Amino acid sequence: MFFASDNAGPVHPKVMERVIAANTAHQMPYGNDTIMDEVRERIRALFEAPQAEVFLVATGTAANALALACYTQPWQTTFCSKVAHIQEDECNAPEFYASGAKLTLIDTDDKMTPSALDAAIKGQVVGNVHAAQPGAVSITQVTERGSVHSLAEIQALTAVAKAHSLPVHLDGARFANAMVALDCTAAEMSWKSGVDVLSFGGTKNGCMGVEAVVFFDPSKAWEFELRRKRGAHLFSKHRFLSAQMAGYLSDDTFAEIAVQANKNAAYLAEGLGKAGAGFLHEPQANMIFARWPRVLHQKLHEAGARYYLWDGPLDGPEDEVIAARLVCDWSLERSQIDTFLSHF
Amino acid sequence: MFFASDNAGPVHPKVMERVIAANTAHQMPYGNDTIMDEVRERIRALFEAPQAEVFLVATGTAANALALACYTQPWQTTFCSKVAHIQEDECNAPEFYASGAKLTLIDTDDKMTPSALDAAIKGQVVGNVHAAQPGAVSITQVTERGSVHSLAEIQALTAVAKAHSLPVHLDGARFANAMVALDCTAAEMSWKSGVDVLSFGGTKNGCMGVEAVVFFDPSKAWEFELRRKRGAHLFSKHRFLSAQMAGYLSDDTFAEIAVQANKNAAYLAEGLGKAGAGFLHEPQANMIFARWPRVLHQKLHEAGARYYLWDGPLDGPEDEVIAARLVCDWSLERSQIDTFLSHF
Amino acid sequence: MFFASDNAGPVHPKVMERVIAANTAHQMPYGNDTIMDEVRERIRALFEAPQAEVFLVATGTAANALALACYTQPWQTTFCSKVAHIQEDECNAPEFYASGAKLTLIDTDDKMTPSALDAAIKGQVVGNVHAAQPGAVSITQVTERGSVHSLAEIQALTAVAKAHSLPVHLDGARFANAMVALDCTAAEMSWKSGVDVLSFGGTKNGCMGVEAVVFFDPSKAWEFELRRKRGAHLFSKHRFLSAQMAGYLSDDTFAEIAVQANKNAAYLAEGLGKAGAGFLHEPQANMIFARWPRVLHQKLHEAGARYYLWDGPLDGPEDEVIAARLVCDWSLERSQIDTFLSHF
Amino acid sequence: MFFASDNAGPVHPKVMERVIAANTAHQMPYGNDTIMDEVRERIRALFEAPQAEVFLVATGTAANALALACYTQPWQTTFCSKVAHIQEDECNAPEFYASGAKLTLIDTDDKMTPSALDAAIKGQVVGNVHAAQPGAVSITQVTERGSVHSLAEIQALTAVAKAHSLPVHLDGARFANAMVALDCTAAEMSWKSGVDVLSFGGTKNGCMGVEAVVFFDPSKAWEFELRRKRGAHLFSKHRFLSAQMAGYLSDDTFAEIAVQANKNAAYLAEGLGKAGAGFLHEPQANMIFARWPRVLHQKLHEAGARYYLWDGPLDGPEDEVIAARLVCDWSLERSQIDTFLSHF
Repeated sequence: MFFASDNAGPVHPKVMERVIAANTAHQMPYGNDTIMDEVRERIRALFEAPQAEVFLVATGTAANALALACYTQPWQTTFCSKVAHIQEDECNAPEFYASGAKLTLIDTDDKMTPSALDAAIKGQVVGNVHAAQPGAVSITQVTERGSVHSLAEIQALTAVAKAHSLPVHLDGARFANAMVALDCTAAEMSWKSGVDVLSFGGTKNGCMGVEAVVFFDPSKAWEFELRRKRGAHLFSKHRFLSAQMAGYLSDDTFAEIAVQANKNAAYLAEGLGKAGAGFLHEPQANMIFARWPRVLHQKLHEAGARYYLWDGPLDGPEDEVIAARLVCDWSLERSQIDTFLSHF
Repeated sequence: MFFASDNAGPVHPKVMERVIAANTAHQMPYGNDTIMDEVRERIRALFEAPQAEVFLVATGTAANALALACYTQPWQTTFCSKVAHIQEDECNAPEFYASGAKLTLIDTDDKMTPSALDAAIKGQVVGNVHAAQPGAVSITQVTERGSVHSLAEIQALTAVAKAHSLPVHLDGARFANAMVALDCTAAEMSWKSGVDVLSFGGTKNGCMGVEAVVFFDPSKAWEFELRRKRGAHLFSKHRFLSAQMAGYLSDDTFAEIAVQANKNAAYLAEGLGKAGAGFLHEPQANMIFARWPRVLHQKLHEAGARYYLWDGPLDGPEDEVIAARLVCDWSLERSQIDTFLSHF
Repeated sequence: MFFASDNAGPVHPKVMERVIAANTAHQMPYGNDTIMDEVRERIRALFEAPQAEVFLVATGTAANALALACYTQPWQTTFCSKVAHIQEDECNAPEFYASGAKLTLIDTDDKMTPSALDAAIKGQVVGNVHAAQPGAVSITQVTERGSVHSLAEIQALTAVAKAHSLPVHLDGARFANAMVALDCTAAEMSWKSGVDVLSFGGTKNGCMGVEAVVFFDPSKAWEFELRRKRGAHLFSKHRFLSAQMAGYLSDDTFAEIAVQANKNAAYLAEGLGKAGAGFLHEPQANMIFARWPRVLHQKLHEAGARYYLWDGPLDGPEDEVIAARLVCDWSLERSQIDTFLSHF
Repeated sequence: MFFASDNAGPVHPKVMERVIAANTAHQMPYGNDTIMDEVRERIRALFEAPQAEVFLVATGTAANALALACYTQPWQTTFCSKVAHIQEDECNAPEFYASGAKLTLIDTDDKMTPSALDAAIKGQVVGNVHAAQPGAVSITQVTERGSVHSLAEIQALTAVAKAHSLPVHLDGARFANAMVALDCTAAEMSWKSGVDVLSFGGTKNGCMGVEAVVFFDPSKAWEFELRRKRGAHLFSKHRFLSAQMAGYLSDDTFAEIAVQANKNAAYLAEGLGKAGAGFLHEPQANMIFARWPRVLHQKLHEAGARYYLWDGPLDGPEDEVIAARLVCDWSLERSQIDTFLSHF
């Protein structure tokens, strides 16, 4: 009954197999391994982007911060949701990697609206030397609240960015979960909708620790390589990053894993709904934000369930309603979910 | 016949076993895994340092840059050999992580001498606001030239640092190779010789990608954790770093691997010596810098041998003497070395 | 009729006299001039703080960014009003000087409330390595909207900071204007109300370009000196900064200038009120935010009046109401204000 | 008898006059003053560079660090003499402003040689992601040792830079002293000799605190403006920087001052030579490095002479020879020099 995060689950067997298979003899280090050639071609094909440049790093924060740094000058500001991972969960990594650039937060509890984004960009007046200048726009898909932007929603946001000539980054730590939820192609959910650079997540979706940064504009490639090394994120035994990503991509394993995770969440959400739990956000991928009384929470915790208390004080009256965040990864079994629900 | 680097060899089976074994069910993320508890205790025991604080990162550059940043203010300078890894091979990562601090280079082709270090420190006058202020001293063991500092040599350098009240960092990317070469204990080659913080390498010595940063002064622990996260080096599925290090440390596997790598190099060096090759530095661990004519180099290359041309132009007369760097990892087989030597 | 800013007015004669008087023979450079000794003693006396450490820089942004950097680690965040100068008008200087630390903005159009500040601080959970850690609290007095915090209001904010063990910075670019408005002492409006470090403005209040940074906790002195030099803000001919500040402080000239500026604004505000203008904020020092129809604005502009259009589009219907920001410096003459008002 | 530095002398009357004259009524702030228009045109004419972009800052370190930052990526390294001001006297400001870029030091006690520069550049292999990439070349004229590069020497260095496609910065803190020493034009000693961006000093040569940064390539203008503001170096009452520079440039005052300073040094050097003092470097502008016995130094010091002891311990036997640095500014009088010499 582990719902604390999808970053705590095991590595999918198909990913692990490739890691083990990669452990033979010597391979050229620092990204010059032959498996990386396979990964690059596979991602270009998946995204229908033969010119795309592809790089691997081991953490989502590294993917986001390095990708954004390539599109942000130190005197600029990146526009994002107030609840974006780059704002709330990366301990100033984006500011660090962009040499002290700012984040401008769009006031929302989930998705940015195009009008709020437009107003925020207009608030940073181009040519006013006293103010941070507009930099990149960063969108999170799946959002940190478990919502999925429709393609039209992404396009509406990127259209605002383009109207101001700003580049667009997509934080796709859960890209696969969103893609299968929308039943669209990788290209449709990225460059065809106006995305310039993508953090394509693997870790939360069954890998060990690998994220691809995909530049649809290849002109940033060398800068990224230098920033990655300077950030200490270039692996000598890079083949083990490549191998994870190769396993993740082969046979559409990434989609298969995401489908399983989303299904687990849908099953859990259905059960919770039937049990009378309220939802803070509509669950659209593999994350659920729900409410129930503290007394039930205590019972669940004692039974071994693990999830984050999302809102409200840890202590309080037993009948107080708390909010919980539950994340499902692919490895959860129906029986675990059934056991969890049996306590309601 | 792969002698290009010890960072290109395979992962040792005992390390791989633990990685595979770690892939079960869910584990708390971000360093809160139970395997990390085992690693911490094992390192404290190995170093006879029950108060030491231990953290894992995936690259040697991250270990060095983050460790040094904890001991360097932005207006300070770190003292190191002109050929140190932090100067030559990290693309300004130390300067990046220390917010623009400087490196002051001791002019040497290998080890720093205590007198040169002392003169360099005195050159940065304490209290002169115009000049970079003295920061940490960083020593590399095994050096980038394959030499091993004796304990007395380390102590002579740390004594200079201490006389100026400066902290000492040891870049131990090849710590195990040096330790077995000196036949000393881990404690003797670190805090007992005056080291305050250690980059304890795993990657080059049979791991997949893991380095421990060991603080013998635990007061820097929380700062390191924040710097690691801000640098995007905190792994969610941290257990796979822990597992590597656990496998590396159990049954003194790290020493066993290093002994094997050093033996391979000694065998190769002996053969080269008999064949008449000259040495730039005396090989003391698993690296060899040797000279032979270009015509022989061409023959070796055609036969599939891989190593770096260290000095001199790539092209030139066939009878010109070139310099080569050869690094042996644990996985090399005698037969490969014999084949290599057979071309001399 | 120049109301665009108090940073565009002339230097007060008493300040200029000291600058001219300082231009004799040689003086020790870099802050070691004898005039600085006089300044230091005068500020310590003015603030009843014999242990205070005092430094001069030439711009308000330098004073703020350097002062805050001494109290902010790169992984922390400074709490301030959404409309603070450090957020809106310093082009990421605070982030630059604090090596990529963040600003957390309290959502207000003017002053922070203690409850909003408290909630914001609690939002950055101490010990959560994923989130920016709480750093300093920065208060602006006079605010960017022309309001003056009462001593009780300052104390309520600093009490929140102290409850979280956070240091407090006061951006006093218009410190003198606020002090005379409150009819309090410099000590009361700073350390006696819980301020740890102060940007004490001179430039906007009749100087040429000088601000004092006053540390009531002297332990940061040497760090500040190094940060100032590293930021390229240490003047060789420092005596000309000292001389400005000496002239500014002697005979309470700073207060005299501020009284005059505030009186000018009060006279203007009274006239505007009588003429039927609406106010966005109650004018309490030397800044006025008022509204009138665009047609009147056009007439004023043609007559030579200079001020900022604060809100709303530059173009629009003649009867549309615009908002204007008017700032009075000491040098304005009643006749200019009368002429201005005569157009209403 | 003040020979400690030319940064400690008084402001020249022609500069002071313009400062005083600028103190009338209101002027637009932040560089939009009308005096700046005059300065811009005057510098373009002086340098025969109608497209040049010109900006003012108050310190030489700001001029250097900001100019270099416009030509240096964080993963690059700037090449300069080991004794350059940017290395020895700016407390890591160049590294700070260039977000952690490195300085590569050419080993020399004075000027760089073209061959040493070329070797250093070749040492930072373009395209090797592990090493700092080549950035700008910075030349100091007058050098920190009082030498003046001939035009041919400058051209030889810039030719090396151009051969590697690297931009060239000239630290001209004493530009005027060198220009009059060479009897050449400002254009010849800058862009006509291959300089891309110039720190054109005023402070040491009779100004209060002003340096111009001159971009012969105007494409960097907006970036510089943003970096200047972000660095807190944009003055609100900018007219007082403009006024200094206007006075400095009118009637070739800058050259007149430099001629006087150089003459003073030549007179002093001649006297020292006759008195038997040895020279460490040939005095070519307004700086002298000379040797004499400690007993004489003590006598001079007691008589009120002020200069830096350059080399060797402060204490020692009376007959030990010490080295002294003496810098002459325009304001020294012959009688002071005569008195100084009378002690020999």
